Amino acid sequence: MQISKRISGLLGGGSDGWDVFNRARDMIAQGTAVTELTIGEHDIRTAAPILQDMHRAAMAGHTGYAAVPGTTSLRDTVAARVQKRTGVPTTRRNVLITPGGQAALFAAHMATCDVGDTALYLDPFYATYPGTLRGVGAIPQVIRTRPEDAFQPRASDITPYAASATSLLVNSPNNPTGVVYSQATLEGIADVCKQHDLWLISDEVYDTQVWEGEHISPRALPDMAERTLVVGSMSKSHAMTGSRCGWIVGPEEIITHLINLATHTTYGVPGYIQDASEFALTRGDALEEEIAEPFRRRRALAKQVLAQQNAVALVPAQGAMYLMLDIRATGRSGEEFANDLLTAHHIAVMPGESFGSAAAGHVRVAMTIEDAAFEAALRTLCSFAEGLA
Amino acid sequence: MQISKRISGLLGGGSDGWDVFNRARDMIAQGTAVTELTIGEHDIRTAAPILQDMHRAAMAGHTGYAAVPGTTSLRDTVAARVQKRTGVPTTRRNVLITPGGQAALFAAHMATCDVGDTALYLDPFYATYPGTLRGVGAIPQVIRTRPEDAFQPRASDITPYAASATSLLVNSPNNPTGVVYSQATLEGIADVCKQHDLWLISDEVYDTQVWEGEHISPRALPDMAERTLVVGSMSKSHAMTGSRCGWIVGPEEIITHLINLATHTTYGVPGYIQDASEFALTRGDALEEEIAEPFRRRRALAKQVLAQQNAVALVPAQGAMYLMLDIRATGRSGEEFANDLLTAHHIAVMPGESFGSAAAGHVRVAMTIEDAAFEAALRTLCSFAEGLA
Repeated sequence: MQISKRISGLLGGGSDGWDVFNRARDMIAQGTAVTELTIGEHDIRTAAPILQDMHRAAMAGHTGYAAVPGTTSLRDTVAARVQKRTGVPTTRRNVLITPGGQAALFAAHMATCDVGDTALYLDPFYATYPGTLRGVGAIPQVIRTRPEDAFQPRASDITPYAASATSLLVNSPNNPTGVVYSQATLEGIADVCKQHDLWLISDEVYDTQVWEGEHISPRALPDMAERTLVVGSMSKSHAMTGSRCGWIVGPEEIITHLINLATHTTYGVPGYIQDASEFALTRGDALEEEIAEPFRRRRALAKQVLAQQNAVALVPAQGAMYLMLDIRATGRSGEEFANDLLTAHHIAVMPGESFGSAAAGHVRVAMTIEDAAFEAALRTLCSFAEGLA
Repeated sequence: MQISKRISGLLGGGSDGWDVFNRARDMIAQGTAVTELTIGEHDIRTAAPILQDMHRAAMAGHTGYAAVPGTTSLRDTVAARVQKRTGVPTTRRNVLITPGGQAALFAAHMATCDVGDTALYLDPFYATYPGTLRGVGAIPQVIRTRPEDAFQPRASDITPYAASATSLLVNSPNNPTGVVYSQATLEGIADVCKQHDLWLISDEVYDTQVWEGEHISPRALPDMAERTLVVGSMSKSHAMTGSRCGWIVGPEEIITHLINLATHTTYGVPGYIQDASEFALTRGDALEEEIAEPFRRRRALAKQVLAQQNAVALVPAQGAMYLMLDIRATGRSGEEFANDLLTAHHIAVMPGESFGSAAAGHVRVAMTIEDAAFEAALRTLCSFAEGLA
């Protein structure tokens, strides 16, 4: 039987750069102890009060079909939160609740790109980006950022592709680099979008995890609210990765159409999960700061460790759960370095090449294990790099 | 800003036949008591033991990213269930867990149809079908079934469209008609699929609600497993509509690709919901029979009421939560009848025209309110019809 070309071609062919990750998983399955610094998942679970609120909502009967756009009160809560954090007037009519950030990324591209349209994204990139663009039938066009710019995109690198494109996908705080886009970077991006009539799809799921500088939502820049779709999620801010609750914030008209799309793709998000999300979002900043705190702490530890050597350089670690380490002084590619580190020391990190080609010669370290083990692994990584350099 | 044509054209334009439904909602919002017989949602909530199991799983820490294809144990449970019910060898590699049946319908068409392919479906149809096909970029081609056949599709009506089509979507037990496709009907459909190399997408979400005859999964017919994708769900069988947990069962190769698609569209289903679904599915048949029982009972009540008059004829009510009533003897269209019934008696039913054109002159009655009120509403409906006939 013939499978659709779009689904059989979804992964784009070639190596996906996840060999090290898969090798680490195989080693673990075979009983080897591996220090995993690969995946963006908290080392804590969802807080008990959130789960208790979820159970309360479920037992109270919120188990039937929830409204497809999201519950009125969660949409109001998200709107108020976004307005408070960005200053952009936002109501529930600007908000669609989705089953997670990935579903929001997919829907945002469905709503902006027709089949054959060109959708831009930046390298290095989160693993699902190119497949998401291919999945909606768009033509993915990657634009490389540069290590010498600390991976802050240059407007002049985007412009040559903008005239023939429909959308641009950005992510700040950034996975995999840990970089937070500056005001100047975002203004440059906004200018390109306005000049070439691009939709800007802004993945801001790490917006509560900022260690240096300030998170700026490009939707708040002049005349950008009408052309920006912001993707948000409970996953990273509230350690609710598995609960699959996210949202799209954007202009009313496209949200109306996105609700129709949701009726035909997902048919809403469990009501008790929406209730628990609302509970979590209305507990104030302390909960979010508590969840961000281990990453802030480990980043400080990492800066101390890295200051004591010269073989590994740290890309400015301004936000999100990751460190991007420049290991080019070792003369190895990220893949070689990561593979050899895994073999020699059973420490698994992601090669920069897993996220495109711009971060070749780098490795990404997730700060997702407890402090002492994290620090020890980082010291080992540095010694290993010094031995090679 | 330009919104994609596929999303702005998703609803296909024209009246969607849901005016009566919306009018009833408006009346309720304005404080009028309306007897709602419109929507396929149980009048019970998800059973407490299922919710307690869900809470147990969440508190035990199953709140992180679940495996995108579904948990191994839920995939195994669904596979074992399908194999037991159909006799078709089925393993977890034939199963993708999805966030609900609607997501499964969307994904199944994404995986079988490329943009511009023709996707067949049958009239009368569940409300989301044509939009789902348009959403994946397929060309929806509807095929009318006939009241005089009790809406059992004729293979000879499908054949003229089959040569140029890619897929055929069927639903038995059927929403909105309540008809269960016979062995002969399904063999006819299977022959057309095999002769014209069609994928068969079989929506079987009502498979535990059969009052007469037997549910036959077309995947179990000779040489059909290789070309059939079965859509299943916890929604109807276990009163878990809001929990959004469903699945696709099909050939291993396409399931592998569907897992890639899921990585880019939904990124899995909450682990604690999967655990609760597994708990519910392994409690044995008694729970499902308990959930189906009110509909069985109300169907029997309806047959008694309808036997006492001649203005309204019952399409054979063999399964699912609905009765399809033929009101053509009143000289009214389904829409006129439903509108007038709502005005005169504050009883809301769905016009057959809400589901296409084949069920014109019919109304669909959901058996989703408690017995006495249901019986009283049906008596009123019959008297009202007799007054018109």
